[in-house]
Amino acid sequence: MASQIQQNLEQKNAQYASSFKEGHLALPPAKKYAVVTCMDARIDPAAAFGINLGDAHVIRNAGGNARDSIRSLVISEQLLGTNEILLIKHTGCGMLTFKNEDAHAVVEKQLGASGKQELSGLDFQPFPDLEKGVEDDVKFLKESKAIPDSVTITGWVYEVETGKVRKVA
Amino acid sequence: MASQIQQNLEQKNAQYASSFKEGHLALPPAKKYAVVTCMDARIDPAAAFGINLGDAHVIRNAGGNARDSIRSLVISEQLLGTNEILLIKHTGCGMLTFKNEDAHAVVEKQLGASGKQELSGLDFQPFPDLEKGVEDDVKFLKESKAIPDSVTITGWVYEVETGKVRKVA
Repeated sequence: MASQIQQNLEQKNAQYASSFKEGHLALPPAKKYAVVTCMDARIDPAAAFGINLGDAHVIRNAGGNARDSIRSLVISEQLLGTNEILLIKHTGCGMLTFKNEDAHAVVEKQLGASGKQELSGLDFQPFPDLEKGVEDDVKFLKESKAIPDSVTITGWVYEVETGKVRKVA
Repeated sequence: MASQIQQNLEQKNAQYASSFKEGHLALPPAKKYAVVTCMDARIDPAAAFGINLGDAHVIRNAGGNARDSIRSLVISEQLLGTNEILLIKHTGCGMLTFKNEDAHAVVEKQLGASGKQELSGLDFQPFPDLEKGVEDDVKFLKESKAIPDSVTITGWVYEVETGKVRKVA
């Protein structure tokens, strides 16, 4: 039996599809850029960052993490023609609130020995300072040999309290 | 000087922030679920999948790839209390169109020897069959010791041509 969350998906999607008129859009992003941001539930990238359907790749993970995004970014740039990256972290991010050892302790408590072993080598990639986190990730991408120098890379902070974005790197 | 893409972000975001009223939302997703889907520019998860602001984590990468999402999913479930995953791949996905060796050949041609070396061990994780790709990723998550058995996991296909979603696993 479908869960309430699955029923919500089916019902809301049926409404969306009933007035859908964008089936003609091409695979490569029309505006040739990629956004890397956090999975946080309080961020709606299309609305908050002004991304029209078909315009940009949107990569999201815990923290808006650059290292986790390399596979996707190389595909975006080298195979699908994008040439600009906006990296956007945000205030109130969960990744600002814990250290790796805290996460591993929770994993061990909740998933037991097999979960602990499965994730033993994992860097959860928390970061203690928001603006420095943005600066570090922009630096990482600029220095990465996987991203050509011709790609424009900037770093931003989104405020979940106000809906405002500001450039920091 | 800000690029057109950065100017678009600043201008559209100023409009968004001017009527923003959701600054009170809590960090943990209100509806306790996570969506894993593709970075593809033709997907607007909030609109197409009926996700209200604050309700769900949204993880996006090339292909809506489960393996790439493990770090984010463990944080979502173990630290932020989600207990259901919707994995949604889509028709017309770029990941259906190439093989690993094709991607590595493009990388070598466009990024040269240093880029080739940087990415030498990378699995770009293309998949040749859409529905099987969904099934394989759902199986991977269900079998992963990093995801407890109590988490509900389903797999879906989104049609970029029609805006419709359908359950396949």
